[in-house]
Amino acid sequence: MVGVLSAAVCLSLWLSVCQVGGSYIPQEMNKTIQNLLQHYKITNKEKFNGKPVFTMKSLTGKREMKMMVMSGILDSYEKLIGHMLKQLPTPSPQMTAGGSEAGGDIKTSLNYILNKIQLLKDNNYQEQNKVLLQLHAFKHIQMDNFVVQSKALWELPLMYEEASSLSNDATKRRRRRRQAKAKSHLRI
Amino acid sequence: MVGVLSAAVCLSLWLSVCQVGGSYIPQEMNKTIQNLLQHYKITNKEKFNGKPVFTMKSLTGKREMKMMVMSGILDSYEKLIGHMLKQLPTPSPQMTAGGSEAGGDIKTSLNYILNKIQLLKDNNYQEQNKVLLQLHAFKHIQMDNFVVQSKALWELPLMYEEASSLSNDATKRRRRRRQAKAKSHLRI
Repeated sequence: MVGVLSAAVCLSLWLSVCQVGGSYIPQEMNKTIQNLLQHYKITNKEKFNGKPVFTMKSLTGKREMKMMVMSGILDSYEKLIGHMLKQLPTPSPQMTAGGSEAGGDIKTSLNYILNKIQLLKDNNYQEQNKVLLQLHAFKHIQMDNFVVQSKALWELPLMYEEASSLSNDATKRRRRRRQAKAKSHLRI
Repeated sequence: MVGVLSAAVCLSLWLSVCQVGGSYIPQEMNKTIQNLLQHYKITNKEKFNGKPVFTMKSLTGKREMKMMVMSGILDSYEKLIGHMLKQLPTPSPQMTAGGSEAGGDIKTSLNYILNKIQLLKDNNYQEQNKVLLQLHAFKHIQMDNFVVQSKALWELPLMYEEASSLSNDATKRRRRRRQAKAKSHLRI
């Protein structure tokens, strides 16, 4: 219970800080999310069941690695909201005539959020998106196909060589950076 | 036909250069792959059908991005060789008594190659492997689950904020680097 409360307090505090400080989230987006949460209402017990969907804990290591994971998170949000949109009831003729029914509002709100996520992903995560597509393509390799197996074996020397070379370059760079740091410390 | 021939010549040339120059591939590994290719034999038409399993073209952009794709390639090789091992016929008692039958040799060779790939992956691609695991976990999100949808919505402000902040940091860094380069050019 203490954990649940402290998590809720932390998030509220963070949200209020965001409102005051320089937040990247447009106010309209924040408001739309809060409105949507009125429809997607769950109990506090469900909300704080210790199993977050996405967590900051998954963002560890270097910035490049964090951005790679983040592109996966944005990609998942895109898919998730796509599912949420599909699950909305198709509007009846009466609803369409009304225009402002809750279902229509939710659709508009979800589409707005989806658009915001897609804009961020397409503008700021282009490189990571390319990598995600490559990684996704590997899932479709026909592992049981004899020709594929033979070709992959034939390509292995070149790939192994490149994999070793890339990681070796990275190690050398790290070493050079450490040595440069040590030298500058000695000078001080 | 010209394409097929030139590809074959290029690879042969590259392999011979590797033998002479400082290659990362142990000679035994190279030899094992060549021996395995005697078993996994396909026609030249199949080999050069213009659809490589893995290609250097997928390794573009910054080193970090290349390493990320490469970790996906190594991961796929691990799975592919796992499939190849499973497809081998289970040895009959006579074969076991013989010991040196082709099937047993192939199994030993595939296990040797698998071990080499795993060593490279585990020692030099640790950070990338962690990211791959995270990205893989996102595939298992229950997109149609109402509680999951609600929780993800609730987490969105924090995630969107972090996604914007991360990409903004990256842009600032690139700008600083460009300005520093321009300054050093002016000095020269």
